Amino acid sequence: MSKLYLGIDVGGTNIKAGLVDKAGNIVHKDSIKTSVDKGSQAVVADIVGIAKSLIFGNGLSYAGIGAVGMGIPGSIYSNEGLVIDSYNIGFSMVPIVELFTQEVPLPTVIDNDANAAALGEAVFANKEGYKYIVLITLGTGVGGGVVIDGKIYSGNKGVGAEVGHMSVMMDGRVCNCGNIGCWEQYASATALIADTKAKIAECPNSKLAEIAKRDGKITARTAFEARRSGDKAGAEVIEDYVKYVGTGLGNLANIFRPEVILIGGGVSNEGEYFIDMLQEYTNRCLYSAKAAAVKVKRAKLLNDAGILGAAALAIECRK
Amino acid sequence: MSKLYLGIDVGGTNIKAGLVDKAGNIVHKDSIKTSVDKGSQAVVADIVGIAKSLIFGNGLSYAGIGAVGMGIPGSIYSNEGLVIDSYNIGFSMVPIVELFTQEVPLPTVIDNDANAAALGEAVFANKEGYKYIVLITLGTGVGGGVVIDGKIYSGNKGVGAEVGHMSVMMDGRVCNCGNIGCWEQYASATALIADTKAKIAECPNSKLAEIAKRDGKITARTAFEARRSGDKAGAEVIEDYVKYVGTGLGNLANIFRPEVILIGGGVSNEGEYFIDMLQEYTNRCLYSAKAAAVKVKRAKLLNDAGILGAAALAIECRK
Repeated sequence: MSKLYLGIDVGGTNIKAGLVDKAGNIVHKDSIKTSVDKGSQAVVADIVGIAKSLIFGNGLSYAGIGAVGMGIPGSIYSNEGLVIDSYNIGFSMVPIVELFTQEVPLPTVIDNDANAAALGEAVFANKEGYKYIVLITLGTGVGGGVVIDGKIYSGNKGVGAEVGHMSVMMDGRVCNCGNIGCWEQYASATALIADTKAKIAECPNSKLAEIAKRDGKITARTAFEARRSGDKAGAEVIEDYVKYVGTGLGNLANIFRPEVILIGGGVSNEGEYFIDMLQEYTNRCLYSAKAAAVKVKRAKLLNDAGILGAAALAIECRK
Repeated sequence: MSKLYLGIDVGGTNIKAGLVDKAGNIVHKDSIKTSVDKGSQAVVADIVGIAKSLIFGNGLSYAGIGAVGMGIPGSIYSNEGLVIDSYNIGFSMVPIVELFTQEVPLPTVIDNDANAAALGEAVFANKEGYKYIVLITLGTGVGGGVVIDGKIYSGNKGVGAEVGHMSVMMDGRVCNCGNIGCWEQYASATALIADTKAKIAECPNSKLAEIAKRDGKITARTAFEARRSGDKAGAEVIEDYVKYVGTGLGNLANIFRPEVILIGGGVSNEGEYFIDMLQEYTNRCLYSAKAAAVKVKRAKLLNDAGILGAAALAIECRK
């Protein structure tokens, strides 16, 4: 029987893991809450636990597993298997690969979760055969991964591309990282929610305000819904948001000149019309557009993107 | 005798060419005015002419030449030997490699001049052994080249990195390319001169204004000189300029996480103190700085950077 690969998506809320075959089919999967409150040792134990239970609980042995991949949010030395900083899971200088393989003696690789997601798209959902792929995730922050010729671009020491921290407004909003005008201060779902909130304060009688009141909360969907219902305040929020996201996409298009930029994360569920608006904005930013177009598309791997991305790390490391 | 490589730096004013050995020594060189006014056929004839005169004029034959490399400003399909658009030399859709090799039957490669310059630094001036190098040229515009593991990163169809057209100010200055807030609208020597001019209009009694009057012109050096003499207006221009250049450097540091960003072009001659200011600004922008530092240094190949970059293209294509 051909080997399976174990992909582990280590998040701040849940750890999700799956046994995946080379074609990207998830054969078994499992999920547990992350014990962030109990410290990094407890989280490492969670990861070891879910790995062992997936393997042995399904009647397999280590011999049946080709390799293990982990996608982890934060700053990572992928080459050394070391998590420099991951605020979401409370890791600081944790040699996760060493700690994990003491318990689970299998070839193990890690990378930033957005890098892993980009690799997952390249390995499992790339029927077009793209060689240059940039993936962006619009969520709590803005993550990004770059895959060139089937390999993650990860820069010096494997630290990786931090595209969410490029400045798109050098006199703009101050970011948690200390830099000014970081893209994620404008393009993340968090920023969209804050901008929606500000617009509601400004236009308390708008449909936008009404929808928020009806739902009892403001989400990344509130302004989109208001816009669809013809509300001016909602349309203004979305117009700005398209500019915010699109400016960064235009930058990545000019800097990497990829064949495609894939949009992932919760906001990408909004639908094709939103992707089309981003495509149009990106086209306007693209230098010498006729030389090579850059497509903007929705990422294809949806709910299991984290597991599949991590499994792709495992598969690629055995090549 | 080991072969020589012919590097041709095709500029809007001059075409410079040199026969270069593998160690980066220029054995013979020559330069002619570019016949831009006479059209692209005349410029191609110029390039052929200087190539032949360098080879045969120095008693060599085609057998003594390993390959030819050309650095050309503008938008290039390096893979296909085609110049899409080069406003400086009046080329549009010129299959320069095909036209050149009809006359000079040698292996010939082309690339954008900033890409070539970056490769030249990597091949001839990289005693540190950097694997990840970004080179920026601050001149009429802002050019950039990225070299990863000794190879130019050139994206889809070899169109290349257009880092000067990333937006650093999404509500900012409109660029000739149609995009808004392009880095080169702030960080080029052209922009520095325009900003100096604006400051002089605002502060007509400043030392800055006095220096411009004394010289009978405003250059990229005017504000630097005023600042050194203690002038407030000059200091303000330079403070802004460091922010403008530094914001883009910070973006490239976060996006590529290179080991080094090299600064070339006329403005880089200002001196180490200017480079130090850029280093400091870049450090402030760098995400998770402790994970991997990004050095900012002056490019090492000076006047002959164009020829050596083009020669590096030729040498690398024969590997």
